[in-house]
Amino acid sequence: MLLVADNLQITNLVIEKAVKDLNPVPIQEMVKKCQAAGADAIDINSGPLSRDPEKKMAFMVESVQEVTNLPLLLDTTNPKALEAGLKMSKNKTIINGFSLEPAKLEFILPLAKKYNTRIIGYLLYPNSHVPNDESQRLNIAVELYEEFQKSGMDNEQLIIDPVIAPVMWENGNIQDMEILSVIRNLPDLLGFPVKTIAGISNLTTGAGPKDKKLLLERAYVPMLAAAGLDMALMNIFHSDTIKTAKACNALYSKHIFTWAEI
Amino acid sequence: MLLVADNLQITNLVIEKAVKDLNPVPIQEMVKKCQAAGADAIDINSGPLSRDPEKKMAFMVESVQEVTNLPLLLDTTNPKALEAGLKMSKNKTIINGFSLEPAKLEFILPLAKKYNTRIIGYLLYPNSHVPNDESQRLNIAVELYEEFQKSGMDNEQLIIDPVIAPVMWENGNIQDMEILSVIRNLPDLLGFPVKTIAGISNLTTGAGPKDKKLLLERAYVPMLAAAGLDMALMNIFHSDTIKTAKACNALYSKHIFTWAEI
Repeated sequence: MLLVADNLQITNLVIEKAVKDLNPVPIQEMVKKCQAAGADAIDINSGPLSRDPEKKMAFMVESVQEVTNLPLLLDTTNPKALEAGLKMSKNKTIINGFSLEPAKLEFILPLAKKYNTRIIGYLLYPNSHVPNDESQRLNIAVELYEEFQKSGMDNEQLIIDPVIAPVMWENGNIQDMEILSVIRNLPDLLGFPVKTIAGISNLTTGAGPKDKKLLLERAYVPMLAAAGLDMALMNIFHSDTIKTAKACNALYSKHIFTWAEI
Repeated sequence: MLLVADNLQITNLVIEKAVKDLNPVPIQEMVKKCQAAGADAIDINSGPLSRDPEKKMAFMVESVQEVTNLPLLLDTTNPKALEAGLKMSKNKTIINGFSLEPAKLEFILPLAKKYNTRIIGYLLYPNSHVPNDESQRLNIAVELYEEFQKSGMDNEQLIIDPVIAPVMWENGNIQDMEILSVIRNLPDLLGFPVKTIAGISNLTTGAGPKDKKLLLERAYVPMLAAAGLDMALMNIFHSDTIKTAKACNALYSKHIFTWAEI
């Protein structure tokens, strides 16, 4: 399971200011910290970027690439910003992401074909509502894959995000247990070993005590790992969760186990 | 997932002395601590009890029952000690356990029938060797269930232990990942929702840094919970592992999630 840092976010005021000022230093400091904390990839969450989207995303990608060779996830709903980022990218790049939402199918999905990148597909309804149970998620996966296939891309380019539900939702924890089964069943359903990603921070979105949120994360991440999740998008500074994730990887290793691995 | 304390062990010198002296106090202190730490059941591991087995097991069971109503697991290979414990038991009792080993089939298994208790069946070869992979474990499960059926008991009386492999074994971690699949597949294989138990302490048996052992335990327990394990036999004083296990139970709850649960 690869660990993707979700820390480079425009909602972080330091990052927001750095982007506004076109100052690469805070962005690069953040990326270096993420890499030191164990990130295998960096999600660049620029938000929708209403003003100067192309310039700002290009600046973010360039700033990040100056300090790391890690793969990048370009996380924006703005197709112009996305394309500017794709044009600038030298590192391995993943588009994050599309769904059945018409605007995403029309303007985001084709960019993965055009730039020959992988793309994350969210199991969401066309109106961006979150499905309510396993069968809804699997139905959406089939529809999403059909749309993906129409674009003429290779199966290896698709990564599916089943969309973790906040536990505070009325049936959130039940959905999250069903997601384990979704992840396990997707390869059989679609007929190829489709890769998967999940945003761990969703689990504990909303009010709640910090220590218990972290505890819940540490309980859920091994379940996802055991279900076969390929990539976990998460706060890479949650060091106990990261240690747990690395212990999961050691358990899953095909090599002889050694304590030095964890 | 119920948590069974494995702490009441004859290998603990304090407990060994208490049994030798027929002094209930250290045993009862241990049981109270286990219950306070979150135990749902107590494993009474008396060892083989070569001298006065009946007297000593009866004493242990009686001592424990004076301070708790929790279910008891009677953990001995000595049929005489076991029967003495069964005669004495008022709490819900589980025999721990039998296997395909001829002496166990002949002398242990019939006691579950005679005293109408549940019994743990270990997925071990008749010579007590640990199977090497998933298909070996599943084959043994079928044989074990056949032997169990011959005894004329109800399916609900059987609890299967897939036998966790120490990660330090050459393919230990690979076996432990296969065990998740064994647990998931046993109900379909045997045709009824067979209960399962696993001894977590096995995972980190042998040399290794304490902190990493605990970390590995915390990574593996949620995987077992997600696989559907019913009972985890473990050191109930590993408080972070216990918290993690309780967080798993909250995730699996059919009730609406609340932070107060964990």
